[in-house]
Amino acid sequence: MKNDLLLRAIRKEPIERFPVWLMRQAGRYMREYRDLRAREENFLSFCKNVELAVKVSLLPLELLGVDAIIIFSDILVPLESIGVKVDFVEGEGPRLEWSGKVSELKRYNPEDNAFVYEIIRNVKEAQDEVPVIGFAGAPFTLASYVIEGSSSRDFRKTKLFMWEREYDFKKLMEILSETLYRYILKQIEAGADVVQLFDSWTNYLSRNDYEEYVFPYVRELINRIKSKTDTPLIYFFKGSSSFIDLAKQTQADVLSVDWSVDLSLEAVRNDKVLQGNLEPSVLYAKEETIKFKTLELLNGIPRKTGYIFNLGHGLAPDMEFDKVKFLVDTVKGFRIN
Amino acid sequence: MKNDLLLRAIRKEPIERFPVWLMRQAGRYMREYRDLRAREENFLSFCKNVELAVKVSLLPLELLGVDAIIIFSDILVPLESIGVKVDFVEGEGPRLEWSGKVSELKRYNPEDNAFVYEIIRNVKEAQDEVPVIGFAGAPFTLASYVIEGSSSRDFRKTKLFMWEREYDFKKLMEILSETLYRYILKQIEAGADVVQLFDSWTNYLSRNDYEEYVFPYVRELINRIKSKTDTPLIYFFKGSSSFIDLAKQTQADVLSVDWSVDLSLEAVRNDKVLQGNLEPSVLYAKEETIKFKTLELLNGIPRKTGYIFNLGHGLAPDMEFDKVKFLVDTVKGFRIN
Repeated sequence: MKNDLLLRAIRKEPIERFPVWLMRQAGRYMREYRDLRAREENFLSFCKNVELAVKVSLLPLELLGVDAIIIFSDILVPLESIGVKVDFVEGEGPRLEWSGKVSELKRYNPEDNAFVYEIIRNVKEAQDEVPVIGFAGAPFTLASYVIEGSSSRDFRKTKLFMWEREYDFKKLMEILSETLYRYILKQIEAGADVVQLFDSWTNYLSRNDYEEYVFPYVRELINRIKSKTDTPLIYFFKGSSSFIDLAKQTQADVLSVDWSVDLSLEAVRNDKVLQGNLEPSVLYAKEETIKFKTLELLNGIPRKTGYIFNLGHGLAPDMEFDKVKFLVDTVKGFRIN
Repeated sequence: MKNDLLLRAIRKEPIERFPVWLMRQAGRYMREYRDLRAREENFLSFCKNVELAVKVSLLPLELLGVDAIIIFSDILVPLESIGVKVDFVEGEGPRLEWSGKVSELKRYNPEDNAFVYEIIRNVKEAQDEVPVIGFAGAPFTLASYVIEGSSSRDFRKTKLFMWEREYDFKKLMEILSETLYRYILKQIEAGADVVQLFDSWTNYLSRNDYEEYVFPYVRELINRIKSKTDTPLIYFFKGSSSFIDLAKQTQADVLSVDWSVDLSLEAVRNDKVLQGNLEPSVLYAKEETIKFKTLELLNGIPRKTGYIFNLGHGLAPDMEFDKVKFLVDTVKGFRIN
């Protein structure tokens, strides 16, 4: 590919500038996304429409000039195959339905997500510019959706389930881990150059609960994947300052962290490649501020650190495209010397 | 006083069991609180009604048997004196109004909060059982209310103000720090045995923003107070795993932390007395679970650590009194040997 900056950064090879991509870079903040989205009534059918999903995936390369494409999909996509009905209610977010009995969940059939692998293949074919990132939710983040049945503000149901139905919780985590293992390997087979696991809600967990109920599954899943493939794996986890010493113990190639950690300190403490961690709210500020905060972050990265620029969380629908573009350009304009 | 367990724990003297009190221990979850609250129409006038505030402050000693009384008040109370109008809208939380010009804020007059000192004196007089804790918001947490004008879910206004009106933000932090310095000293003069500073919203800040915009003021405020008095000072800060290495550098006697840190690890890394950090959601669980999680925490505290049991955040209105009582009894039943 013409621009393999991301892969070189992950291998800690010399790079002239830091690679940049953004979580949820193809999303509602982008007019071209909204236009394509309007062609399907339902969000899930939009994800499954290979032609549209490929187009959406490519938008950030075309419009922002990022250094990686993450395929357009949703972390809830593999759940249908194990027997969890997923629906997206406009303006309300996901609704999940299942029997509530962990023992009734089905064994995952990776072929149920054939459309995802096809999206990856087609995105690879459609361009030879940049690496393609496949992704999945991490076991806990998926478990929390399954248990809550929707988005949550406090994850109370999940926590009570975890503490009081420990056997079922662990069984659910095992089922999800097995599902994700097979799902991720299929994405790699289809041509994903990098994969990312999203643990988007771990910031709601105590350090002790993460360590006891979540981390063993994440570590096992990551290590199992890495025992089968050299494809780089990125582990994104919220509440990063609380869990980074644990995350380091996995075989993940890259730790993608939120703004709770000081990247310049972590770079010294840590020999993993780091990704992140600009606070997304910076994008609501003036260009001058965006530039200041971005350069401040980039200047803090020690020279030999493998590093990929990203935000500490995904882009939000109410962000302005021009500012996102300005951010990407600011990172691309920063020279490492 | 008959039970000085809290003070002995802070001095790291030998104790037979860990002291326990709970943030927002006198609050809406308690029927007796709601009965007293009903006697005043407005929340602020409730705070200013010395007789009622004293009664409310005493409730947790009488009904829960905690080892400390925290006076009943609100962190927004000192703001009126500097020219910020504070109002509480039923079911909506605080509404703050001011000119928006930092230069127009007035110099704090501690006598405007004479009712607070009177509450402290009266609570001291009303009982000789346990120590009395005075408190205030920390400068950033108050600044965030002043800037947002209400509670916030993302503190976007505060962040933009901080980044883009840096001069004004720092001026505001100075005014609040000076206010809090005088307010806290007056509480100590009135007889507070311990004081606690609440930085309840720092978890919304990036590590770097906390370090640059918040920590210098907190450190200066704490150290200034401690240069004038031996009264123990507790610093409570959310997002604890992100900032604890900084908080350690202050002269605070006690660090009160949320559930993002592993207390047993921190106790080893840290020679400050620790307070916290049970996740409050545990109180929605069954008694069996409450007991398990509490004992797990207590068993993790190394023997020589100065430690005060508390939650990682305040009690919520929808918690059950009986479970709160059960929690307190569980802690009191745990023997250190």
